[in-house]
Amino acid sequence: SVNPDLASERQTASFCVEKLTALLDGGAEQTRIRRAVVEAIESDPVFSRENQYFQTQNERYETAVRKAVHLQKKMHEMGWTENGPEYKYIYRALSGDVAFLLHRVFMRSISVLGSDKQIAKWIPLATQHQLIGSYAQTELGHGTYLQGLETTAVFDTATQEFILNTPKISAMKWWPGDMGRSATHTVVFAQLYIHGKCHGIHPFIVQIRSLQDHSLCPGVTAGDIGPKMNFEHIDNGYLMLKNVRIPRDNMLSKFCEVRPDGTYVRQGSQKINYFTMTTVRISLIADEVLIPLMKACTIAIRYSAIRRQSKLKPGEQEAKILDYQTQQEKLLPQLAAVYAFHFINDYLQELFNRGYREIQRKNFDMLPELHALSSGFKAVITHHCTAAVEICLRACGGHGYSLLSGLPSLYTKIIASCIYEGENTILLLQTARFLIKCFMAASAGHPVPPSVTYLAAVKPGNCPAKNKLDFLRPDIYTEAYQHVAVRLISSTAAKLQDLIQSGVKKYNAWNQCTVQLVQAAKAHCHYITVKNFAETVEKLETKAGIQRIMKHLCDLFALHGIFSNTGAFLHDGYISASQMDMVTASYLDLLAVIRKDAVPLVDAFDFTDKSLNSALGSYDGQVYQRLYEWAQKSPTNEMSPAYERYLKPLLHNTLSKL
Amino acid sequence: SVNPDLASERQTASFCVEKLTALLDGGAEQTRIRRAVVEAIESDPVFSRENQYFQTQNERYETAVRKAVHLQKKMHEMGWTENGPEYKYIYRALSGDVAFLLHRVFMRSISVLGSDKQIAKWIPLATQHQLIGSYAQTELGHGTYLQGLETTAVFDTATQEFILNTPKISAMKWWPGDMGRSATHTVVFAQLYIHGKCHGIHPFIVQIRSLQDHSLCPGVTAGDIGPKMNFEHIDNGYLMLKNVRIPRDNMLSKFCEVRPDGTYVRQGSQKINYFTMTTVRISLIADEVLIPLMKACTIAIRYSAIRRQSKLKPGEQEAKILDYQTQQEKLLPQLAAVYAFHFINDYLQELFNRGYREIQRKNFDMLPELHALSSGFKAVITHHCTAAVEICLRACGGHGYSLLSGLPSLYTKIIASCIYEGENTILLLQTARFLIKCFMAASAGHPVPPSVTYLAAVKPGNCPAKNKLDFLRPDIYTEAYQHVAVRLISSTAAKLQDLIQSGVKKYNAWNQCTVQLVQAAKAHCHYITVKNFAETVEKLETKAGIQRIMKHLCDLFALHGIFSNTGAFLHDGYISASQMDMVTASYLDLLAVIRKDAVPLVDAFDFTDKSLNSALGSYDGQVYQRLYEWAQKSPTNEMSPAYERYLKPLLHNTLSKL
Repeated sequence: SVNPDLASERQTASFCVEKLTALLDGGAEQTRIRRAVVEAIESDPVFSRENQYFQTQNERYETAVRKAVHLQKKMHEMGWTENGPEYKYIYRALSGDVAFLLHRVFMRSISVLGSDKQIAKWIPLATQHQLIGSYAQTELGHGTYLQGLETTAVFDTATQEFILNTPKISAMKWWPGDMGRSATHTVVFAQLYIHGKCHGIHPFIVQIRSLQDHSLCPGVTAGDIGPKMNFEHIDNGYLMLKNVRIPRDNMLSKFCEVRPDGTYVRQGSQKINYFTMTTVRISLIADEVLIPLMKACTIAIRYSAIRRQSKLKPGEQEAKILDYQTQQEKLLPQLAAVYAFHFINDYLQELFNRGYREIQRKNFDMLPELHALSSGFKAVITHHCTAAVEICLRACGGHGYSLLSGLPSLYTKIIASCIYEGENTILLLQTARFLIKCFMAASAGHPVPPSVTYLAAVKPGNCPAKNKLDFLRPDIYTEAYQHVAVRLISSTAAKLQDLIQSGVKKYNAWNQCTVQLVQAAKAHCHYITVKNFAETVEKLETKAGIQRIMKHLCDLFALHGIFSNTGAFLHDGYISASQMDMVTASYLDLLAVIRKDAVPLVDAFDFTDKSLNSALGSYDGQVYQRLYEWAQKSPTNEMSPAYERYLKPLLHNTLSKL
Repeated sequence: SVNPDLASERQTASFCVEKLTALLDGGAEQTRIRRAVVEAIESDPVFSRENQYFQTQNERYETAVRKAVHLQKKMHEMGWTENGPEYKYIYRALSGDVAFLLHRVFMRSISVLGSDKQIAKWIPLATQHQLIGSYAQTELGHGTYLQGLETTAVFDTATQEFILNTPKISAMKWWPGDMGRSATHTVVFAQLYIHGKCHGIHPFIVQIRSLQDHSLCPGVTAGDIGPKMNFEHIDNGYLMLKNVRIPRDNMLSKFCEVRPDGTYVRQGSQKINYFTMTTVRISLIADEVLIPLMKACTIAIRYSAIRRQSKLKPGEQEAKILDYQTQQEKLLPQLAAVYAFHFINDYLQELFNRGYREIQRKNFDMLPELHALSSGFKAVITHHCTAAVEICLRACGGHGYSLLSGLPSLYTKIIASCIYEGENTILLLQTARFLIKCFMAASAGHPVPPSVTYLAAVKPGNCPAKNKLDFLRPDIYTEAYQHVAVRLISSTAAKLQDLIQSGVKKYNAWNQCTVQLVQAAKAHCHYITVKNFAETVEKLETKAGIQRIMKHLCDLFALHGIFSNTGAFLHDGYISASQMDMVTASYLDLLAVIRKDAVPLVDAFDFTDKSLNSALGSYDGQVYQRLYEWAQKSPTNEMSPAYERYLKPLLHNTLSKL
């Protein structure tokens, strides 16, 4: 039985929920496939996540390995293949709680960086999990700056081997997943030395554990780096190498080869690798960032529809917390952000597919733009969604703080996305570098990539809005965002120029502008997101109320961005103080409008109760019952030895005194 | 041996670190006492926190109970008493990782709400831990709104007992600490019914577990609510009562009594309780909010001084990340916030002491102001510091994400402070209610409390700053903050009036203004904080460089607030666009100045390595060595059964194929 407070929310939906689900999935057929995968995974007890919040790091790891091994069987049984339409839904249905993800990266790096012979040797074994691979790049003292890696691989002509060493403690490989306990092999990135000359970073396949008894190989020190904020199921590891010798054949040699005599040969273009890195940043957005935020919104909004607190109207029942303006202002903009980023993700995917086709034709022209977009959007989306999940958690008050709400684990996991695959500040500065370059080119009348042509066509004048309804016009707010992006990019470019012209060294000048460069890069991405959302809404079919509700969300996303960042729009008077008051009025009005559809909007995300794994977010809204039943299963409900040891001696004589 | 990158930071301190420590402690004598307590606690192996990050919830609970019991012995041994000067440092030295904190609340509530007879009966037993108490107020379905609590206590004249019931699942007591496993007794808040008439919420002492074998008493269902984001060491519990009978004497009856015939008598004033609630909000700021942020700053800043990444200047060594402007912009404002909130905490403490003296003289005039200030500052400080700890965590990149950095546990704990003792949004709205009232009174020429007299004396005109140095003048920025606070309070008051005059019901009008009311309340607190910081700096002695560095931090705090919130200052043109550019320039200049003293500024917090419990933050900066050594002790470095069960069968035949 559905909680009546939740049921009533569904009766007044202004749009067809199933149609919106299909829109998010990319078609009704995709929805059908996704549901079939979810059903198959969730009906299999091996994949259950019910005890997840009660498990230790050791238990989580063991469960994840068990699931990974079972998944092979399952895929075979279901006829799912790595190239099939189901594949992308499997990981999502498992909520990522499975081992051997780095094993997949190990395989991908061999496929991309290895010679045909290397691929033929290693890939079949890896596919069958007859070895477990990892990917050892990051070191204790070195992350983002790859040139700084300290691990060395010295070629020994006499034995035709590479001798690998992590010469200092800061050179120790640190963080690679699947390496702490599982991996038998890993791809190690090391500085290649031949006859004393360094040729830079190259990848080498290194066996680290015995295939017979899993003991560490000679010269290898490895283990688990211990507890983290989340990812308890992953054995992130450390690795030290001391004079570990591997055959010449183990250097991945599609692009670079070391001949027996020590001749170093570079072959083909490495630009494609550069492209691979940018692809990873885009590919993580959907599963690692948007799905967690969609779950957090579902949990927080459903809970806000059943939780009643204080009286809004004297004499009436306590009000649903979703009816408070402050609660709406916390949650509904996050919901709008989900859709904004969902559509920008579609845009990026399409752009990357186009880029990939061009690259296959040996045309690398799109690479700088793709790199800038993938860097900037990775940073902006992970940052925004992390903050959004935290807002959802806090909006649920005390119950949000219980692991059983599902929200803490969503938060502690999504926050890692701000750090991995490129730390966000560094990524934004890469985007900024591209923007400054393009701005200079555009100013000089040179052609620039499509996403930045707006820098060349700066329009004078201020915002033409005359009343609050004008701020519901996409052309009005999109232009405002564009104006801010241009202003921030051009003013920072000017500051940079001024500093250099006044004699400051270029690298110092750059450092002195970085805080503002980050702002400029964010403004660019924000503008593109708003523009893309508005354009997407325009193209939607008007049937079933979909376009209307999406238009509301687009307006909300845009106005929330202005409302939360008024200074950027007020600075040069593009938006005046009285226009800003109109923005505020329109923004607050929209909250009340969208609030009516809040529950149907999260229903459209179509999460099963098992995939939410949350006592607050279940479809039926029986929150209190569920919290109570679940808590009783916690191992903390067993008798603690602390009673016999410490409490009993204290309490023991009290009875006589009462 | 100290990492030379860290050692060099200490050689150039512009001020005397020991003098600043004494300033923070409130005098050199206090520093001495604090250090003695820390030394005594940290040299006792029972109080060790070394394994904390490796322990399960069950192990954490058991350790916390052990520590609590041992602490009694220790206090006796050391001659520490609850009223002694050492007492306030004990809990801090234990980092809160100890059981029976709610037992103390149990005792306090009996002392404050109980009759002399009740105090004489229960307090001696509780002091000796011959019973373990808890405090059962919050219910599954009810938190902030106390009137909504559903637990009932019906007086039975025939037996002279109260019959207690949690009649619905939402009435179940939920969250009380020490209740899940430890408590034998608890103070239950319930709606008192006599002869069918409800007299509202009253406190009752209820025994929940047997003193003989710790089994649950008849009619009692209780247990642990399971895993949370932090506080693993606390057995937050649930409690259901079914016709549990307690003697009439168990209603805490200092202020209200039920006579044998059922006559309800209210005696004395309850206003003092109201005051107690506000005191708790202030008292948590130092230990629960500022100390965690001070620790996070210490960890992140020391780490940023030893971590090198990328080259700032071509051809040179990789740069310390603390030398990047973006890293300074993340960390240094948080450091400034520590000092800002430290001084406002002093201000609040003093105000509350004064208030307490007045109340003892039966003068309750200060209560509304104290309530407004305690609510607003609790919300603003917990929110700001939580965000700040998150920034510190993320600023440490991957290593910040390891539990061994100490940062995740600081974050997951401090975030709870935004929720407990009054959810922040609700608290800010209480402050806003006070501000609107005072604004109306001031506008009508009536007298208002001291902290809001500025509302009566609104000055016309704009910011007089002429160059970037003018923004280092406290009068200039303090007035800007004041102007913004007045503008937000007055404009929201006007909106509220307009809505009501246009026929909107008062409660609806209020709800439609809440987003802006929250902004107004924050602006008020921000203004008071800046003003107090500036005034404090002015009064500091100029010796030993203390005043100069504090002045820099005050400027930074103020300018960071403007820089991060430009719209509020630009809105009505009080600060112009070109003045805002001066703010930005001064702000960025200050970062480079304060960066030079960053490490000495955190050294002044005077945390021992044990109290930081962090591989990144130790005084000697040997980060990588410490991470490695500590990780090796993790239980995840034991052999996992997953190998035998799942991996061995897969890997077993591989050797023949390689």
